[in-house]
Amino acid sequence: MTDHATAELWPGERTEAARRLLLAAVESFARRGFHATTTRDIATAAGMSPAALYIHYPSKAALLAEISRTGHQSTLDLVERAEASSTEPVEQMRRLVEEFTRWHAHGHTVGRIVNNELHALPEEDFAAVAELRIRIEETVLRIIARGVDAGRFEVPDQRTAARAVTSLGIDVSRWYTERSSESPEELGRRYAVLVLRMLGAAGG
Amino acid sequence: MTDHATAELWPGERTEAARRLLLAAVESFARRGFHATTTRDIATAAGMSPAALYIHYPSKAALLAEISRTGHQSTLDLVERAEASSTEPVEQMRRLVEEFTRWHAHGHTVGRIVNNELHALPEEDFAAVAELRIRIEETVLRIIARGVDAGRFEVPDQRTAARAVTSLGIDVSRWYTERSSESPEELGRRYAVLVLRMLGAAGG
Repeated sequence: MTDHATAELWPGERTEAARRLLLAAVESFARRGFHATTTRDIATAAGMSPAALYIHYPSKAALLAEISRTGHQSTLDLVERAEASSTEPVEQMRRLVEEFTRWHAHGHTVGRIVNNELHALPEEDFAAVAELRIRIEETVLRIIARGVDAGRFEVPDQRTAARAVTSLGIDVSRWYTERSSESPEELGRRYAVLVLRMLGAAGG
Repeated sequence: MTDHATAELWPGERTEAARRLLLAAVESFARRGFHATTTRDIATAAGMSPAALYIHYPSKAALLAEISRTGHQSTLDLVERAEASSTEPVEQMRRLVEEFTRWHAHGHTVGRIVNNELHALPEEDFAAVAELRIRIEETVLRIIARGVDAGRFEVPDQRTAARAVTSLGIDVSRWYTERSSESPEELGRRYAVLVLRMLGAAGG
């Protein structure tokens, strides 16, 4: 696993076997893509038999769904924490971009799967994840709107700006590697400065 | 094919059969990912036999390499045209972001393949594409540096800013669909405004 954040995603309440399978699935999907990965590949990577895998997950799609739901929930949580961290839109946005960027750099392997394999999710899981994505986007939009109302941001098209903010963060997962020159934290700080300028932040 | 730009990518000098195979490969890679696509899938989608495919391309990797090289060459061309279009860095950057964004919205299917399947390229093709990617990034960086020198931009970290500019454009391919509310051209104009602000453009 090249990805420190992965282990953090599935905390203690899961069985050790389930966590091993999730990690193995992340590794396999990242290497071959979802479609070319078999449940046997995942079981082997986790040091289990396919039969042992099925005790925990009925299919590779169920593993993808769990990875995608927990990944999206975790980014929604940090976005909502950023909003709750201050009453000041500039501070909320700074925190949001710092944390959202850091998450996608640190967890770039999971981030890539979560964002590129959406179309492979079973319908019901897709709907659940789409709902989480909308809540993330709406939180970003709410902070922008509040900042504009308070005269702290100056934004010609709020929906396009919100899209650009989330897009910049999400795309970090595509290009970031452990060989990148900036740490996830440093990249988060730099991106926050760029985004606040993009939003025409007074004092940003 | 949901993607108008695709046909523009391979102009007249190719045989009709080669173009049909490239289009079929784009469609198949987009649907299943590169690894899960077989040469038979591509041949069938092109209305040919696998044997007929091999007359034109020795492997699916050769098709991916051609799609990736032409896609990258086409974006490098537009980036260089933007640089040549003016002597004024603000105008160069405005044009660059408008065209780069438009390309990735219009050609989102090809853009997604070209950016997500890099790791699947044969070594030599990967090196050629990596070289094109560096030239794109260096052009963006050169315009930023020239703008800073001329007092037209104010940028704390030029390399991070250049990365953010290309990242915003590339990620359009991930999220843009024909159902998006903005046309590729309108999105390009809006993104150019956001990027010029990000670069602290005087009069941007």
